[in-house]
Amino acid sequence: MKVNLKEQPVFEICLVVPKRKTKKKDATHDCVEVLENAFRKVGLIVERIDGVNDEFMKLAAPLETLGKAAVRLEMKKRTHIGMDLLFELDEVNAFVRQPDGSLFSWCERFRCYHHLIYGIVNENQSAVTLKCDEEEFQWKVGESLISTLESKKIVKQIFPLHDEKIRKKLLGSWALNWWDFTGQPIDEVYSYYGAKIALYFAFLGMYTRWMLFPASLGLILQLVEFGSLRLLVLPIFFISIILWAIMFSQFWRRKNSALIARWQINYSFIGDSSFRLSGVECGSPQIPVELIKNQEMDKTKEKEVFQRIEWFGRLRRFRNDAIIILSIICLQLPFELAYAHCYEVIRSDAIKFGLTVLYLFAIQYFTRLGAKISMKLINCENYENHEKRADSLVYKIFGLYFMQSYIGVFYHALLHRNFTTLRQVLIQRLLISEVLENLLENSLPYLKYSYRKYKVRSKKRREKGSPQGKIHFASRAEKEYLKPSYSASIGVELEDGLFDDCLELALQFGMIMMFACAFPLAFAFAALNNITEIRTDALKLLAMYKRPIPRVATTIGAWLNIFQFLIVMSICTNCALLVWLYDQEGKWKIEPGLAAILVMEHILLLVKFGFSRLVPEEPAWVKANRVKKATQVQDICSKRLLRTISGGEKALNYVKKTQ
Amino acid sequence: MKVNLKEQPVFEICLVVPKRKTKKKDATHDCVEVLENAFRKVGLIVERIDGVNDEFMKLAAPLETLGKAAVRLEMKKRTHIGMDLLFELDEVNAFVRQPDGSLFSWCERFRCYHHLIYGIVNENQSAVTLKCDEEEFQWKVGESLISTLESKKIVKQIFPLHDEKIRKKLLGSWALNWWDFTGQPIDEVYSYYGAKIALYFAFLGMYTRWMLFPASLGLILQLVEFGSLRLLVLPIFFISIILWAIMFSQFWRRKNSALIARWQINYSFIGDSSFRLSGVECGSPQIPVELIKNQEMDKTKEKEVFQRIEWFGRLRRFRNDAIIILSIICLQLPFELAYAHCYEVIRSDAIKFGLTVLYLFAIQYFTRLGAKISMKLINCENYENHEKRADSLVYKIFGLYFMQSYIGVFYHALLHRNFTTLRQVLIQRLLISEVLENLLENSLPYLKYSYRKYKVRSKKRREKGSPQGKIHFASRAEKEYLKPSYSASIGVELEDGLFDDCLELALQFGMIMMFACAFPLAFAFAALNNITEIRTDALKLLAMYKRPIPRVATTIGAWLNIFQFLIVMSICTNCALLVWLYDQEGKWKIEPGLAAILVMEHILLLVKFGFSRLVPEEPAWVKANRVKKATQVQDICSKRLLRTISGGEKALNYVKKTQ
Repeated sequence: MKVNLKEQPVFEICLVVPKRKTKKKDATHDCVEVLENAFRKVGLIVERIDGVNDEFMKLAAPLETLGKAAVRLEMKKRTHIGMDLLFELDEVNAFVRQPDGSLFSWCERFRCYHHLIYGIVNENQSAVTLKCDEEEFQWKVGESLISTLESKKIVKQIFPLHDEKIRKKLLGSWALNWWDFTGQPIDEVYSYYGAKIALYFAFLGMYTRWMLFPASLGLILQLVEFGSLRLLVLPIFFISIILWAIMFSQFWRRKNSALIARWQINYSFIGDSSFRLSGVECGSPQIPVELIKNQEMDKTKEKEVFQRIEWFGRLRRFRNDAIIILSIICLQLPFELAYAHCYEVIRSDAIKFGLTVLYLFAIQYFTRLGAKISMKLINCENYENHEKRADSLVYKIFGLYFMQSYIGVFYHALLHRNFTTLRQVLIQRLLISEVLENLLENSLPYLKYSYRKYKVRSKKRREKGSPQGKIHFASRAEKEYLKPSYSASIGVELEDGLFDDCLELALQFGMIMMFACAFPLAFAFAALNNITEIRTDALKLLAMYKRPIPRVATTIGAWLNIFQFLIVMSICTNCALLVWLYDQEGKWKIEPGLAAILVMEHILLLVKFGFSRLVPEEPAWVKANRVKKATQVQDICSKRLLRTISGGEKALNYVKKTQ
Repeated sequence: MKVNLKEQPVFEICLVVPKRKTKKKDATHDCVEVLENAFRKVGLIVERIDGVNDEFMKLAAPLETLGKAAVRLEMKKRTHIGMDLLFELDEVNAFVRQPDGSLFSWCERFRCYHHLIYGIVNENQSAVTLKCDEEEFQWKVGESLISTLESKKIVKQIFPLHDEKIRKKLLGSWALNWWDFTGQPIDEVYSYYGAKIALYFAFLGMYTRWMLFPASLGLILQLVEFGSLRLLVLPIFFISIILWAIMFSQFWRRKNSALIARWQINYSFIGDSSFRLSGVECGSPQIPVELIKNQEMDKTKEKEVFQRIEWFGRLRRFRNDAIIILSIICLQLPFELAYAHCYEVIRSDAIKFGLTVLYLFAIQYFTRLGAKISMKLINCENYENHEKRADSLVYKIFGLYFMQSYIGVFYHALLHRNFTTLRQVLIQRLLISEVLENLLENSLPYLKYSYRKYKVRSKKRREKGSPQGKIHFASRAEKEYLKPSYSASIGVELEDGLFDDCLELALQFGMIMMFACAFPLAFAFAALNNITEIRTDALKLLAMYKRPIPRVATTIGAWLNIFQFLIVMSICTNCALLVWLYDQEGKWKIEPGLAAILVMEHILLLVKFGFSRLVPEEPAWVKANRVKKATQVQDICSKRLLRTISGGEKALNYVKKTQ
């Protein structure tokens, strides 16, 4: 049952090495030559390209090479019978193909590449002496070649390459396909970018599509003059948008699980497949996994150890969350309030402008500081996998941004009860900030790219000594090398550029939902913005940035919970807005006691619904037990099953017979 | 690898047949003789006992007979490697034993008995003529013998027998072990009664143990004179009991899943194992299961069908819930309010008494009517399994009881703001109703039992013609036959006596939680009551009733959700109580607008948190897909795996090697 293993290889990974003066003289010692030979030896196809300042080494892997790497990685893949089994090269037909027809998904391919590239170690008896121009250094026994070269700054960067054919196709069918409004070729996006990015775009598409309903409601409210009925119409609008939001978040979940099922991603075995190209895999302080493998330990002791780890981990997380929340409330809140108050009080426009500039610088600094502190805190927490750590970071950073974005608006809405100012602030924030942000996020990478090109050119010119003559970037690889990478603005290693895109979406959602009653038209603005956002985000990914490193995910992670939180918040704020809207004379004085009780009631309600999320329903040791057993079975039957089910049809027939 | 299959058989099932006058004359035609022979032929051990008025046929099954039945039932059992595989008699060692050392749990045994007893069909070419005394009738080809005899009223009843040895042991270690307070031998209860009852007692035990904390708080509040601090202490008490309740419900979940893991019950395959001895298995209108097996249908069409079924089912359930809720609000609420008002207004004690008697009769009738309507509605709903249907019934009936129990108290608390009356009502309800109920639920079955004994004796005397001489019930089986069965007071086939016990607990929880601020001492009363409740409930099950039919369950089902609902309710009611407590002069007049907004806010909050329960996160077709695939794999590897893993140690070694 051999199949066509010879798909046309595409160059998908690129290494950047400096240009050396001594060329091809000493192939046995020149580090780049050694590297190329090593790559060829493991079965990679190498193409070297001379760039303007650097040399580029493009790598492609035939299916057989990838398959061997997958076998060594003990990769689990979905088979035709729906179980995830260890991959074996001989039984290729037993495994489900991707929607685009390839055997491995982009994320799996990337993992194999990573394994192949970093798997080249010195297997000789003694260290090998390598040369780069004049410099000599030792490749020690058992050490990874790439790591050695990276530490010597010879391998400058390793990055995934765009696939020009698919990229062009996606440009036409996705980024520039304006007439589709919210329609996107999500499956192709998944094949090209991996699950995490595809899920974001699926979410953005559905969110925008659903947004049309409140947008039209908001438009009606704005255009039709209800007169005295207005105070009746507003609560109806409020209720319908809250219901809309609740339904949306639930139906997104359903759509999400449908997508995951279509892409054949398994829910349970994700933890191990998200990592970086940096060579250092995230050293997770995750003791349970070791325990799972330790069969000798007796049951009661095991249970105790699990419970201790579970509770200590929970306590540590609780402490960290408390630190973050307290510092936001005690440090950030007064700062933001002070700014909002000063801005309100100061009359002079010049001082106002200066204050704002100062403020903008200050929050930049604060956000970076907050991100750093959060990262430190998260590193001492104990998460099952990379994505959970990223989620924890998202929650913490979102706390900062939440204060930053909304506290000024709250100040106007709740303290000053000034609806005209509130509306002005909202319009200003929604329109100006969104337009500016969109412009910025699309022009900034282009400016960066241009600046780098300029720098490379001027360097070349200096070297050549002649300031004239245009220098062309002949190779696509070099151009891509100069493009900025898709990274988060907070600049941490846990998240990539998706963080900023999701953050923008969440802040927008909060802004339009929480002050819905004050400014119903906001939904229409948001809908318009999101329709363009789909295309500009796609364009950004396809044209402005390096191809991002794929991440496996089954959900949009923390962001959905943040949306839920914003819905709850918006219930409360809109109620408050309604109270003040009906009571513009300020006559219904709410006594402090009653107010305190109401606040308490709400806090308790939140605790009630939040607690079930804080403490999971299943103790960690029960879960670990279950996982352990499931893995054991799969290990046992893996090979046996494979032979039976090789050839999808045969397997199905067998199943039918046994039923 | 043969094992000792010869465990001492215990008589576990009993059939009741009438005494016939013609004895052992015509063994080939007398229906009871035929039945006995048929039982012996399938491998059951039969013992016949002559009772006072009836004849009893006790059945026991050796392990081999049970095993054969289990194979025919395609029963899935937990193996040593943790996967649930189809049972096979040759590979007994591969399967995990119960905590008490037996191979099959009581529920599995019962299922096998049911299959064996109802599996006796006429396999001859022609109908067999059977006789019972003078009466002759036909046992048609392919018809079940028991069903034929049941329709002729010859088999009067089939019921599970108590195991005298274990029952006595449990009496000592459980029902009469008063010094243990809340400690119970839960594992033994599970072995003897099955998962559902064991879970109820585990819940009751944990609830009572946790109750000691608020009980002591309540006592302190009652005994210590706080003076002017009282208004500060009460909110603290309120917050701490709410937090207590939230923690309790979450930690119960954890304990629950720990218990289920210990008992080796699988989460997913429960649907098929709950049924009745009535011969008619619940005809579930559950199309998806058929669809799962239909492999031919193409994917898109399958998905559509699933979605249609899912949404129609949901719509139907929604309609039914709306009917129930509307009828409770429109019919029951005015009735209850009218009673509460009349009781408050009327001065004459005689009329009051008459009114109460009338009311008690009326609610009896209403509850029965409500249960009947609910059953009818549920029958047209579409649930995955028996337990889900039972849960749906529980929700509907609890609605009725909720109104019945609390509306009078609400009337006093919220409308009249009369705290002294409220406290009196609470004491009356808590103390008197609980003591009365405990007495009633323990004496009623005994009275029933005595009355039946008396009836049997008098019938015998009439037959004999001599009114003198004491008639003894020699056989244990006959005594058990006369005991009432453990059935729900609402008298429907979906629930057994657990319904009443759980209802009592839930109503008590609601009473003490919702009016906690008005009467903190209630917790102490409840704790005392529950400590006795554990023992009296155990005694009731062991001594008063027939052994109940075992039910498989992984949770206490709907009741936990009802507890959660009561917690949310108690947050609101206690807040209201606090407001009125601080404002005894009634000065803080709450404007209607503000009140309406607050109410709306709460409804929305409820909807928000409730919606995620109403619509599951995973569409039905995705789930079905997953289940289908998981089953397929298990079918394929079942037999192969079994040979590998027969003998637990060998398997574990193998696993270790492969890792």
